[in-house]
Amino acid sequence: MTDTAPRPTLEAVAARAGVSRATVSRVVNGGDGVREPLVERVRQAVEELGYVPNQAARSLVTRRHDAVAVVIAEPEARVFADPFFALQLRGISKELTAHDNQLVLLLTEGRDDHARVARYLAGGHVDGALVFSLHLDDPLPGLIQGAGVPTVFGGRPGWSDGRAADTGPTLYVDSDNRGGARDAVRHLAALGRTRIAHITGPLDQTSAADRLDGYRDVMGDADPGLVAESDFTPAGGERAMRDLLDRRPDLDAVFAANDLTAAGALRVLRERGLRVPEDVAVVGFDDMLPVAEQTDPPLTTVRQDIEEMGRLMARLLLRRLDRPGGTGSGPGPRATAPEQDVPPGEPDGAEAAVVLPTTLVRRASA
Amino acid sequence: MTDTAPRPTLEAVAARAGVSRATVSRVVNGGDGVREPLVERVRQAVEELGYVPNQAARSLVTRRHDAVAVVIAEPEARVFADPFFALQLRGISKELTAHDNQLVLLLTEGRDDHARVARYLAGGHVDGALVFSLHLDDPLPGLIQGAGVPTVFGGRPGWSDGRAADTGPTLYVDSDNRGGARDAVRHLAALGRTRIAHITGPLDQTSAADRLDGYRDVMGDADPGLVAESDFTPAGGERAMRDLLDRRPDLDAVFAANDLTAAGALRVLRERGLRVPEDVAVVGFDDMLPVAEQTDPPLTTVRQDIEEMGRLMARLLLRRLDRPGGTGSGPGPRATAPEQDVPPGEPDGAEAAVVLPTTLVRRASA
Repeated sequence: MTDTAPRPTLEAVAARAGVSRATVSRVVNGGDGVREPLVERVRQAVEELGYVPNQAARSLVTRRHDAVAVVIAEPEARVFADPFFALQLRGISKELTAHDNQLVLLLTEGRDDHARVARYLAGGHVDGALVFSLHLDDPLPGLIQGAGVPTVFGGRPGWSDGRAADTGPTLYVDSDNRGGARDAVRHLAALGRTRIAHITGPLDQTSAADRLDGYRDVMGDADPGLVAESDFTPAGGERAMRDLLDRRPDLDAVFAANDLTAAGALRVLRERGLRVPEDVAVVGFDDMLPVAEQTDPPLTTVRQDIEEMGRLMARLLLRRLDRPGGTGSGPGPRATAPEQDVPPGEPDGAEAAVVLPTTLVRRASA
Repeated sequence: MTDTAPRPTLEAVAARAGVSRATVSRVVNGGDGVREPLVERVRQAVEELGYVPNQAARSLVTRRHDAVAVVIAEPEARVFADPFFALQLRGISKELTAHDNQLVLLLTEGRDDHARVARYLAGGHVDGALVFSLHLDDPLPGLIQGAGVPTVFGGRPGWSDGRAADTGPTLYVDSDNRGGARDAVRHLAALGRTRIAHITGPLDQTSAADRLDGYRDVMGDADPGLVAESDFTPAGGERAMRDLLDRRPDLDAVFAANDLTAAGALRVLRERGLRVPEDVAVVGFDDMLPVAEQTDPPLTTVRQDIEEMGRLMARLLLRRLDRPGGTGSGPGPRATAPEQDVPPGEPDGAEAAVVLPTTLVRRASA
């Protein structure tokens, strides 16, 4: 092979051997888990094509590192304290591993470190990024777009109305937060509750804002004193519940924006001698196990499949990377809605979204 | 500046401005947190030297990515289930962030993915690696040494006797596992207990093996039926406690190799109607909060400073990287024992170790 001859690619070996790219990768890199006949076919194809399974050479040819960054826009302490993130990472990890891609989790102490994260993303160390828990005033999305790495977001990014238009489609995976919230509040109303309070999440996150919108869809112009802003943590749920009881001691139901917050609210209700659900009915959001099952009483909640959201984020990104032009220095070509084994989304001009349905799970608290 | 003139380095700018490398990095990359007079001095030095704060150029010159990989040799599900890892990561994250280095956590589904991790490490994406929770038969240490990245281990690696000799010093941070275990068992003996059982950790990890050795140091040739092998998990602790009670219903104390295991053991003792500490005294290891405080009764345990271990691992690695020859394609020059603000270690020919002391923390269980 001379210097000017094109180097055979991993894809060429895969095509010659009649196996997947991942299988070739596994064989040439000495990994296990490939059946012997396949190993033999790959070895033969490698020999015939003169393929060089060298990391640097391979990266030059494929422009792929087989590595995907995950960025959670929260301090690392919160990443490890909230099981939501572990669940989403579980889905991502399974999907990336199934495609022999390395999960590269970039941890930070907080927002001040986001410029450094963007530099790492721009440094050519990963093929793409999965980003979640974005807050509205976070510079991260802009920095990531500047870094030019293909990205899939977890949760609808807050700037979707205008900002995305000139930089290509924004891919994201979300739950039907607004619809799920409506179901929760309608359930409480169907139980005959009329003074239904809402403990929100951080309203600079679209998931929390959408759940508040769903509450308002049903409650219309209810007393604003029935809404307390919180932060998705158990301690925040306790504080909000105390505020609500001080303001509206007559409340007869609470819809909490997530299960951790609901767990905090339940503790305060018990502390105040209020019975759940007799005096105050409570509904959460997430169906985070074991949290939702181990509260006292067990929590009625809106289920979203967090692990599946992670899996879909990874799948969308890998599909985008596999498309010609999917990697490189800028966003890929305008994506269409995801096809095959991905639920129908809500694509519009600037977005390709997958929005997963939610379900109400009834336990004892409402 | 012509093509042949040496590019000014970040270090040169730092020297000219009379500030640290981290400060220059922060200024040229637009980060915050630097006082205005310092910013001005750095800007002036950048201008005078014609420094180009370009990521690629900078990497070429400094051979630094300002990024450190963390590899935990466990499946990601366990990484998020065991608070030990979160604590160690917390220390690492704080230390790396203080030096403006990006923490790159490489997650896997298990051992089959370790070859891929090693490829990522060898791919020039990080300056060094922090590796912990190694198991004896894991190919990871060998793969990492092959990848040629400077590495600091958490916990004494199991191959230290021979393997390290020809590849340079092995740097690691550990707790005095054997001494701590001796303290635990001596405490139980001092309470008058004579039939002291031990629930081990996974014995292919040196931390677990060392704690078993400490138990044997005190118990001598006690009945082997008093030792049950386990796996550092609460469920494993329950199983081991049941086995022990079946074999030796007369046991009057248990030393569990970590707090999670002790929590499982306490549940089984309660289930069997045995009082703690009256019938059976229990001591754990770690002083993992809130676990150790929230067991019933609260747990007497051997405290090790897990967060500090993480911090020291990061500090040792950064110091090694700052030494001339500390980065590059092979292990750096033979390291001496760590100096300054690091506790005295136990360096020998092939190792530079920092071994942290442990303390017995008395609560109600023994």
